Amino acid sequence: MSHEFTYRLTKTDGAARLGEIAMPRGTIRTPAFMPVGTQAAIKGVHLSAVRAAGADIVLANTYHLMLRPGAERIARLGGLHAFMNWPHPIITDSGGFQVMSLSELRKLDANGVTFRSHIDGAMVALTPERAIEVQNLLGSDIVMQLDECLKLPATRDEIERAMRLSLAWAERCKRAFEGASPGRALFGIVQGGDDASLRTASARALTDIGFPGYAIGGLAVGEPQAVMLKMVEEVAPALPADRPRYLMGVGRPDDLIEAVARGIDMFDCVMPTRDGRHGRAFTRFGAINLRNSRHAEDPRPLDEQSPCEAARIYSRAYLHHLMRADEMLGAMLLSEINLAYYQELMQGIRAAIGAGTFAGFRAATRAAWDRGDIPALNA
Amino acid sequence: MSHEFTYRLTKTDGAARLGEIAMPRGTIRTPAFMPVGTQAAIKGVHLSAVRAAGADIVLANTYHLMLRPGAERIARLGGLHAFMNWPHPIITDSGGFQVMSLSELRKLDANGVTFRSHIDGAMVALTPERAIEVQNLLGSDIVMQLDECLKLPATRDEIERAMRLSLAWAERCKRAFEGASPGRALFGIVQGGDDASLRTASARALTDIGFPGYAIGGLAVGEPQAVMLKMVEEVAPALPADRPRYLMGVGRPDDLIEAVARGIDMFDCVMPTRDGRHGRAFTRFGAINLRNSRHAEDPRPLDEQSPCEAARIYSRAYLHHLMRADEMLGAMLLSEINLAYYQELMQGIRAAIGAGTFAGFRAATRAAWDRGDIPALNA
Repeated sequence: MSHEFTYRLTKTDGAARLGEIAMPRGTIRTPAFMPVGTQAAIKGVHLSAVRAAGADIVLANTYHLMLRPGAERIARLGGLHAFMNWPHPIITDSGGFQVMSLSELRKLDANGVTFRSHIDGAMVALTPERAIEVQNLLGSDIVMQLDECLKLPATRDEIERAMRLSLAWAERCKRAFEGASPGRALFGIVQGGDDASLRTASARALTDIGFPGYAIGGLAVGEPQAVMLKMVEEVAPALPADRPRYLMGVGRPDDLIEAVARGIDMFDCVMPTRDGRHGRAFTRFGAINLRNSRHAEDPRPLDEQSPCEAARIYSRAYLHHLMRADEMLGAMLLSEINLAYYQELMQGIRAAIGAGTFAGFRAATRAAWDRGDIPALNA
Repeated sequence: MSHEFTYRLTKTDGAARLGEIAMPRGTIRTPAFMPVGTQAAIKGVHLSAVRAAGADIVLANTYHLMLRPGAERIARLGGLHAFMNWPHPIITDSGGFQVMSLSELRKLDANGVTFRSHIDGAMVALTPERAIEVQNLLGSDIVMQLDECLKLPATRDEIERAMRLSLAWAERCKRAFEGASPGRALFGIVQGGDDASLRTASARALTDIGFPGYAIGGLAVGEPQAVMLKMVEEVAPALPADRPRYLMGVGRPDDLIEAVARGIDMFDCVMPTRDGRHGRAFTRFGAINLRNSRHAEDPRPLDEQSPCEAARIYSRAYLHHLMRADEMLGAMLLSEINLAYYQELMQGIRAAIGAGTFAGFRAATRAAWDRGDIPALNA
């Protein structure tokens, strides 16, 4: 434990980085995958299982929580950690991304955004200062600046305008966050769409403002993986080596390993739980759709070598049945299995960087995914 | 453990009975509440939590499992215990009740019922012999005879006809079950609607046929509690004291305690999980609707003295939020809390009978329910 937020880069292997973020509520081993608890709950998974799988930190969504149950209410109840019963680190986003994607956007100007709640239709204002205030009320350990997330494709002028606005908001968020406990940290967010020069300019300007950590936002919004990875390649070298780097909203297992190879330290994504609810399992041998009838009589577990008990003790036939019968337990088990696989992958990545064997790990992991699942003999 | 199915009546306290059913897969402490795993899963609750709450046995539904994934398929996969990963005793119903309530009933005659599957529209035949065959394929430890469940109200003639048909099917089921392992047991089912004399006649005739255990069926189908309890009062004395008595599909906590007071040993009901999914918690202080806005800022747990961790560590405000936000975790936690409360109640009942203080336990438990939940001071 540490009284201050500190990042320590332990080892590099190519561009891949092994490190540790220490803060009062715990230590985050990086590269880290942060499970998403949008509404102060991981969908379908008990937090005890999230923790047991190896998560050091979870993410919650400011946008959702400010609308329901309300940040002031959570503060009166002792903050988000007490509310959801997770004493370990919590990161919250700023709400900007969801304002763009979920609400009927009413007005965006230099001061902030005003939008209609998708829950009760109320008009809500979100400024850089309010985004910080809400996250302070929640008591999150890692706080994100408010930014403007453009949908791609967009013109260069539009991308540049949104990037510059996000920079201005970064400065306002930094001022608003002054006086926060030194154990908490505010991250700036690099924008710039799919334009490498704007991305680099954003990263440099943010670095000049100065943050304890940097995120790359506005990616994983439908662009090809190659575009995302190219932006990461451009941005990472422009960020200070002694601060953690967080690629927001990413991603699939191969996105994670490729982004780590380009110097990323932190990730979050709804995919393990969302895909789990739809019957998709992530394994060492790639993604497996349990709804497929080829699993109907397959007595094998998903992965008998998994550290996750659910992946070892239940047959594919049972998981198939649960998904076909719309039993909650199917979504619960596959979400847990997927979160565990993501953590197993991150643990493997960290061990490989530590041993200086990341290139081999990356190649072997990709080869196993590419080889794919081996169907049962009777299938 | 026992190689044979045996019931031992340990102690009586008034009409209430303390006992034990021993069988190869484990011992069932009676009075027992059996959680319902309709489709080979308890909705929203891991079986490890069901077990930890104190369940010695779970119930699965023949009707659902024969339609999906199919009894033959489950047999090929090693039986229901292996399929759902529950090595302890399992009871299955005969399918008769669901044929009446869920399927488009096509034809009922002395030979059995033919119905259209509510899943895929296929025509399915269920005879006494097939009901036993299906339950043998599933490998259940306690097997129920096929019976005809009438909807009430019905004429006395109709009730008598269905009761006599159920008796004829009881004999056929007994013959079909001959040769089963001595560690498994077939229960006969008393029918007779809300007619005391028909109920008594059914109980006596079933006793003449002879079963290792007896169920009372066709109740808890919407009739007033007083009618149900009156039928139990009539039937229980007509059943042999050295065999367990199972009141099917019951019930609310006060149904359980009142039926125990009238000599019942076993219960099953979907209420703990179904009501939990809808935001209703059962506690020592009665039922609490967590969707009610009075809980929105209540920091208290549901019951700080509960043996169930979820009832102790989560605030009512959080549970309220989860239900309002339609988060799966809300249904999961409340289902688990309710199953734990039912088991806590049964444990209290058993301890009281053992101590000869059942009347006092019953009065104190009812008084606490009647007193109700104490709202928060700020509510």
